[in-house]
Amino acid sequence: MFKELLGNVRAKTPLIHNITNYVTVNDVANLLIACGAAPIMADDLGEAEEITSICGGLNLNIGTLNQRTIPAMFAAGKKANQLQHPVLLDPVGAGASRLRTQTALDLLKQLQFTVIRGNSSEIKTLALGVGNTRGVDANAADAVNENTLDATVDLAKQLSAKTGAIVVITGPIDVVANEQSAYCIRNGHAMMSQITGSGCQLSALITAFITANPERSLEAAAAAVSAMGLCGEIAFARLTKADGNSSYRNYIIDAMFNLTGEALEAGARYEIR
Amino acid sequence: MFKELLGNVRAKTPLIHNITNYVTVNDVANLLIACGAAPIMADDLGEAEEITSICGGLNLNIGTLNQRTIPAMFAAGKKANQLQHPVLLDPVGAGASRLRTQTALDLLKQLQFTVIRGNSSEIKTLALGVGNTRGVDANAADAVNENTLDATVDLAKQLSAKTGAIVVITGPIDVVANEQSAYCIRNGHAMMSQITGSGCQLSALITAFITANPERSLEAAAAAVSAMGLCGEIAFARLTKADGNSSYRNYIIDAMFNLTGEALEAGARYEIR
Amino acid sequence: MFKELLGNVRAKTPLIHNITNYVTVNDVANLLIACGAAPIMADDLGEAEEITSICGGLNLNIGTLNQRTIPAMFAAGKKANQLQHPVLLDPVGAGASRLRTQTALDLLKQLQFTVIRGNSSEIKTLALGVGNTRGVDANAADAVNENTLDATVDLAKQLSAKTGAIVVITGPIDVVANEQSAYCIRNGHAMMSQITGSGCQLSALITAFITANPERSLEAAAAAVSAMGLCGEIAFARLTKADGNSSYRNYIIDAMFNLTGEALEAGARYEIR
Repeated sequence: MFKELLGNVRAKTPLIHNITNYVTVNDVANLLIACGAAPIMADDLGEAEEITSICGGLNLNIGTLNQRTIPAMFAAGKKANQLQHPVLLDPVGAGASRLRTQTALDLLKQLQFTVIRGNSSEIKTLALGVGNTRGVDANAADAVNENTLDATVDLAKQLSAKTGAIVVITGPIDVVANEQSAYCIRNGHAMMSQITGSGCQLSALITAFITANPERSLEAAAAAVSAMGLCGEIAFARLTKADGNSSYRNYIIDAMFNLTGEALEAGARYEIR
Repeated sequence: MFKELLGNVRAKTPLIHNITNYVTVNDVANLLIACGAAPIMADDLGEAEEITSICGGLNLNIGTLNQRTIPAMFAAGKKANQLQHPVLLDPVGAGASRLRTQTALDLLKQLQFTVIRGNSSEIKTLALGVGNTRGVDANAADAVNENTLDATVDLAKQLSAKTGAIVVITGPIDVVANEQSAYCIRNGHAMMSQITGSGCQLSALITAFITANPERSLEAAAAAVSAMGLCGEIAFARLTKADGNSSYRNYIIDAMFNLTGEALEAGARYEIR
Repeated sequence: MFKELLGNVRAKTPLIHNITNYVTVNDVANLLIACGAAPIMADDLGEAEEITSICGGLNLNIGTLNQRTIPAMFAAGKKANQLQHPVLLDPVGAGASRLRTQTALDLLKQLQFTVIRGNSSEIKTLALGVGNTRGVDANAADAVNENTLDATVDLAKQLSAKTGAIVVITGPIDVVANEQSAYCIRNGHAMMSQITGSGCQLSALITAFITANPERSLEAAAAAVSAMGLCGEIAFARLTKADGNSSYRNYIIDAMFNLTGEALEAGARYEIR
């Protein structure tokens, strides 16, 4: 029941610590508020552990990573692991530079993640240790569609087995898997790839959902993915002729603000494989 | 007369130096432009003093503070003090980490502020030296309402006496006080707490108002608080059923852009205690 | 034919590496997507060269420059020069501090730029080595209007001769010049100066246009300037009475998202001197 899972986010208002890129950070904060959570951003080594300690969950996003913030990611992650807080990794652009690939792999080695979320190219990079990302976007060859779905489910389950984390691969179809089973989610709209940060927002949203639903992480991650996709659909339906990607960005967050559990339950489209 | 005070901002276009967090910085810049001021952001020690020198006022906001920007805050603040420019402190998240609490206290010790603006938890942290903030939001127990208003007014006046700064405590009711007297302002809307950065924007706005009205700082700070709240009310009235916090954020800045002195004068709701 | 030049951006989806300020970075990313390009932001020395290598063009913007990002600008710029990628310099606030002026001059000395874009005060600072900027805005005395147009064209041509770069000076009238000839462009709307980052967005847009049209850089830069101005006009026409600069910001990006080659061709207003 996705309805209940969203209800728990709204009821518990989980405080989420985000160490994230400066490109999409404002949208991440507003989306977290829209879903019922509360954001805090803190990326300095001098306070990373302490901020994590007062929060319920941690969202690590390596977009615009740098020499100052990387140590803060490790420190916050270790503290969150100690405290058994949920931790999410968003390996933005893994495969685009050695620094990103290596940082993502090191984070995976040193920390226990609850969820790893990326596009198919980023996840392939993590699974294979090398990658072929087009900047921060997935390669066309890696797109998740009906033809590649089985292979994508396998990839997600394998990486989950290897890491112990729930693996979320987003694209035209989204896959949310642990070692045993995978949600294949058909919510969303192609235009979501025309705004910057829909992936970053989703990662924050998943962190909020798994923090508010610690006993049901797989289902909570799937509910978050479905909710984000559904908001993309609702926002698309709202577009006027003059609207473009900037208004669309606002409408997605607005849709999350107004999303009811009933609407999520009714609109979620998925199967379990 | 709040009308005149807004008029001076629009007539003088004060240039405001902001050392502020990267979460809400774009909204801070657009809100400053909306009120008639001009923003500049510069947080490197290599230029902080010089940028402060060409500006009229300085806005120090410790959200996403870090080892690189903290020294720039002190340098800019000292230069602004030398030049007798108005300086505002926004102690975002003071109480949430030792780094934030200590930095805020050190800034208070080494610099003379014209205004300190925070939520009730942040201000309590500054007044008492320790605090109990929920991330960057006020604790529910600290909320400023009719029952706690007298105590809040006392707190603000005491911190003002101690620091020589005007103290602004924001919440359901806003308090703007110097040692002698306090404006209790009943503008605003609860939904303003559902967007990230309404506090950061208000701090920038106050800086613009006190810079354009140097002889009447207390009244100017109160006018800014009232103007921001009024824009929150105007923006709320504009919301459609599909709108949420993202559109609301835009509408608040839009409302400031269109706010006339007459509308501010008519809409301001306050008493002086 | 500006139509073709926009068509090439949309057809080629050039990947643009941006080392840019954190104030306007989200709008820069969304504007790049709106025009058909793809953005990546990466400002750490540890990956700057590598990210530049996988991109088609490089946009260097010195707003919020700092000790960490300046070396990354030089490294990325040198790599882009080696690879003969187009590189744009946006000297935000050159003239406002020695750090900005000196960094801009050093970048000009050590790198070969394809385009330099700034307001008239910033460009004067680069041309004369000293300047008189009002923060990040042009001095009123430097405004490009009919009276000063001839002198502005001369300034642009001279700086182009000196640097080998196309020089773009923006203001009420925009000038896009190489050593021999100058486009004088009369698109745009005065309200574009009421949002933060219209200049930053334009610099990114020009980078996309020159990257997708490497054989026709001058015309491509002019097409980008005209397209941005036209979107400012379209967005202005869309404003309702309640809208202000925040909605205007969204509408400009929306307009770019919907801009057709035909509309650009029909709406472009320029002469060549």
